[in-house]
Amino acid sequence: MDLRETRLPRYAEIAESLRGQIENGELNPGDRLPSERELSRALGVTRPTLRQALLDLELEGLLRRRPGAGTFVAEPKIERLTGRLSPFTRGMEQKGLEPGARVLLVETRPASKSIAARLQLTVSAPLFYCHRLRLIGGEPMMLEKFYLPAQLVPAFDTLDLSGSIYQALEQQYGVVVQRAQQSLEAVAASKQEAQLLCVAPGDPLLMERRIAFDPAGHPVEYAKDLYRGDRFRFLSDVER
Amino acid sequence: MDLRETRLPRYAEIAESLRGQIENGELNPGDRLPSERELSRALGVTRPTLRQALLDLELEGLLRRRPGAGTFVAEPKIERLTGRLSPFTRGMEQKGLEPGARVLLVETRPASKSIAARLQLTVSAPLFYCHRLRLIGGEPMMLEKFYLPAQLVPAFDTLDLSGSIYQALEQQYGVVVQRAQQSLEAVAASKQEAQLLCVAPGDPLLMERRIAFDPAGHPVEYAKDLYRGDRFRFLSDVER
Repeated sequence: MDLRETRLPRYAEIAESLRGQIENGELNPGDRLPSERELSRALGVTRPTLRQALLDLELEGLLRRRPGAGTFVAEPKIERLTGRLSPFTRGMEQKGLEPGARVLLVETRPASKSIAARLQLTVSAPLFYCHRLRLIGGEPMMLEKFYLPAQLVPAFDTLDLSGSIYQALEQQYGVVVQRAQQSLEAVAASKQEAQLLCVAPGDPLLMERRIAFDPAGHPVEYAKDLYRGDRFRFLSDVER
Repeated sequence: MDLRETRLPRYAEIAESLRGQIENGELNPGDRLPSERELSRALGVTRPTLRQALLDLELEGLLRRRPGAGTFVAEPKIERLTGRLSPFTRGMEQKGLEPGARVLLVETRPASKSIAARLQLTVSAPLFYCHRLRLIGGEPMMLEKFYLPAQLVPAFDTLDLSGSIYQALEQQYGVVVQRAQQSLEAVAASKQEAQLLCVAPGDPLLMERRIAFDPAGHPVEYAKDLYRGDRFRFLSDVER
């Protein structure tokens, strides 16, 4: 092999051309693409070739197919930073977005063995458990489940839980979250999760698990957040 | 609501009990669970309740169902750090694992508009493109595609590309990767990706995109890595 240019496969050229149009703003979020028939004729490619290009862009998250309605340019993903502790409410507000929360369940639960270990509690110690759907501009975006040691936050369930929990922890209980251990995984949406998030069952989600600590190093929260894979991206700047 | 303990739903109790057995080492990676009939009888729950518990653990990545063969305890996920630039080969070796690479394609390609912008090159500038399957102990784990400016790495395609590329860059060309911008997304495996990674089409993957820079701040690599969602987890320690 030498440095002579090899050409991209035809479908990859088509994908790259559409990608460029999206990145340059010739195609905008929400725009509907012409039908496959029109598009394949306009581009001078067969429909299987076109479909391969569209599928690549769909899997990449740049296009979104809505059965019966057509193929649309996807909204750009919302960016979260993995290198900094940035609570959802605050992080979204800083981007000029309107975060919201719908409380699905609040209850007291005994700590299971695995959660007790994470929060350095005895098994069966009482926890406040809260399950919320997080929204942006009214659209479902993230599902969160979190556990707080009940002795740390008496009467937690009587608070207004539709806003920032970290703010409530600080203002109501003087509990400051200073540091966290986080992990990110790709998981498939269950039927129930898919329904709540308005995606299809099996769609990829980003699961963030977090143990949060106060300045003295005591764990104060265990959380599991499920972000829509089609709407979020996590960024980091790294050094060697 | 008061602090009296509410009980978990039955399926969640079952899931939590199995989770505990996996975390405590009573159940080990590769162990096959008893059949649904045996297990539901042993635990005294209905099969739909058991199935809900098993499904939760499967979506969490703790169990793995193999059609026709049964349900198995999954291998623990391999951990990668999001806060540090840790090349795959080096990172896996440090864990005592045996990384490998199978080169699928090496060719010279003209820089598309979007890649040219990322690498601060002119459109159509020649790039080395390389597509590799990364393995651990012979098992497919990650698919990587990367682009290097061809003028930076003459005769790159004549090198042995089955090992660490960053090492080759340093030793052969004196190019040091110092810093990178990375993003993580959850995407669905395409048919071809699934086949190469030995997962099912649509399975969740973690897509890492990276622009790597030398100490002078020049971009030297654009890469897109697809990690198996069932085998990897990305960790970070964060401060407020």
